[in-house]
Amino acid sequence: MEPRDEVDYVSGRTRLFGIVGHPIEQVRSPEMITAEMTARGHDAVLVPMHVLPDDFDAVIPQLMRMPNLGGLVFTIPYKARAVAFAAELGAQARIVGAINALGRAAEGVWRGDIFDGLGCVEAFRRRGISFAGKRVMLMGAGGAGSAIAVAVGFEKPRSLTIFDVDVARAEALAHKVATANPGVEAAAGAATIEGMDIFMNATPVGMLADARLPLALYTLPRELVVFDAIVKPERTPLLELAERFGCTTVRGREMMRGQIARMVDFFFS
Amino acid sequence: MEPRDEVDYVSGRTRLFGIVGHPIEQVRSPEMITAEMTARGHDAVLVPMHVLPDDFDAVIPQLMRMPNLGGLVFTIPYKARAVAFAAELGAQARIVGAINALGRAAEGVWRGDIFDGLGCVEAFRRRGISFAGKRVMLMGAGGAGSAIAVAVGFEKPRSLTIFDVDVARAEALAHKVATANPGVEAAAGAATIEGMDIFMNATPVGMLADARLPLALYTLPRELVVFDAIVKPERTPLLELAERFGCTTVRGREMMRGQIARMVDFFFS
Repeated sequence: MEPRDEVDYVSGRTRLFGIVGHPIEQVRSPEMITAEMTARGHDAVLVPMHVLPDDFDAVIPQLMRMPNLGGLVFTIPYKARAVAFAAELGAQARIVGAINALGRAAEGVWRGDIFDGLGCVEAFRRRGISFAGKRVMLMGAGGAGSAIAVAVGFEKPRSLTIFDVDVARAEALAHKVATANPGVEAAAGAATIEGMDIFMNATPVGMLADARLPLALYTLPRELVVFDAIVKPERTPLLELAERFGCTTVRGREMMRGQIARMVDFFFS
Repeated sequence: MEPRDEVDYVSGRTRLFGIVGHPIEQVRSPEMITAEMTARGHDAVLVPMHVLPDDFDAVIPQLMRMPNLGGLVFTIPYKARAVAFAAELGAQARIVGAINALGRAAEGVWRGDIFDGLGCVEAFRRRGISFAGKRVMLMGAGGAGSAIAVAVGFEKPRSLTIFDVDVARAEALAHKVATANPGVEAAAGAATIEGMDIFMNATPVGMLADARLPLALYTLPRELVVFDAIVKPERTPLLELAERFGCTTVRGREMMRGQIARMVDFFFS
């Protein structure tokens, strides 16, 4: 009988992945991406790698020299800086100008892409909802909003209206989406559910104890699909309202799961 | 109900440790040291870090800059090269000229020490066997033998006789031990059990399918304590013979466990 002096989830053959951020304690990728990798039968673990801003440019290329490192995930404040380490960029990353995953392609080339927006599209796909031909209203043109706008743009909606308190930011994002997708009517515009098929919140309004809605809404048409990128709480004031009116809702946590699935596809492609 | 989409053994707060070696697949520290750390209640994981010889000097200082890295274990071929990265060396490491663990001392200073030999002493201690005043025969003055000789030397045996097919190597090691421990009669000498209290094998003879004994032995006195540093097989031909004659035996696996316990003490001291 072998004594229980060994764990069964890590060994010398385990493929190593890291999430690089500052701070690092709050990240959720270690438990979630490791779960997704192991559920798919990979002997792999994703660990937190706390890298300070002054060290980032020196540390990353050295980590990339470890042959058993399968890939890196980047979070705040490194998504834009990490682009410099990708030899190839995915379509999303080229437009957004940021990556949140760096993986070894089959030929050993490091590829970068950003999966926030793809995770959102994946969450809709899992619910059987397509963006094709739809009129979409997006609230917020920050980090999450940009990634969502770019990913949704590739899905050929009829129109994408982007609202942000910073109008210039909304306009710049709409311009990016329109340029990348000639058939898509992407524009900055007023916040409204009028004439929309899908209403998406990518602002922080409604996060944690914030009881506000991202837009003054009193009634919602049952046909409207309502999405909120916020993960905590899982059921935001916006989603609660939408459920009350019988709308289909897609939650931030579903986007997170979609993102994780797409990232693991990417790491093991 | 939360779906089972998370593992419970790694998170953003998990303290990171690595074993650095080339090759890396065969190492056992990830499963064993992680088990020891978690059994003591630490939220920590030790992962394999495959570093190529040409990259070693550039990678290690960058890894050391990660604030959540608790320490590094070094294995073949890096135990001597790793000394350069320790600001302070333990007593064992100073004499052996190699380290297999690098940890952050309370003040943030990186300390290095070597635990192979200390693990052997720890294994004997757990069996209630002291080296003090004993006459010890050690076979082999290579990496394992050197570490064991130095650690045993500190335990004040009456004498330590070291045999190696490379006589100069045995003499150099005996000289080191004698210099560090003025009261200890340490010398290179012929392999024998004659007049010995403890017989230690630190040669690879008896490893895996090797059915040989490190010395032609036909009978053993019951009072002799017999140790074999070999881990696989757990019961070497030497230990089998010793058990047949009723000798107390100490196994390589016990040394490995002793070493792990001492390394974890060191990492969290």
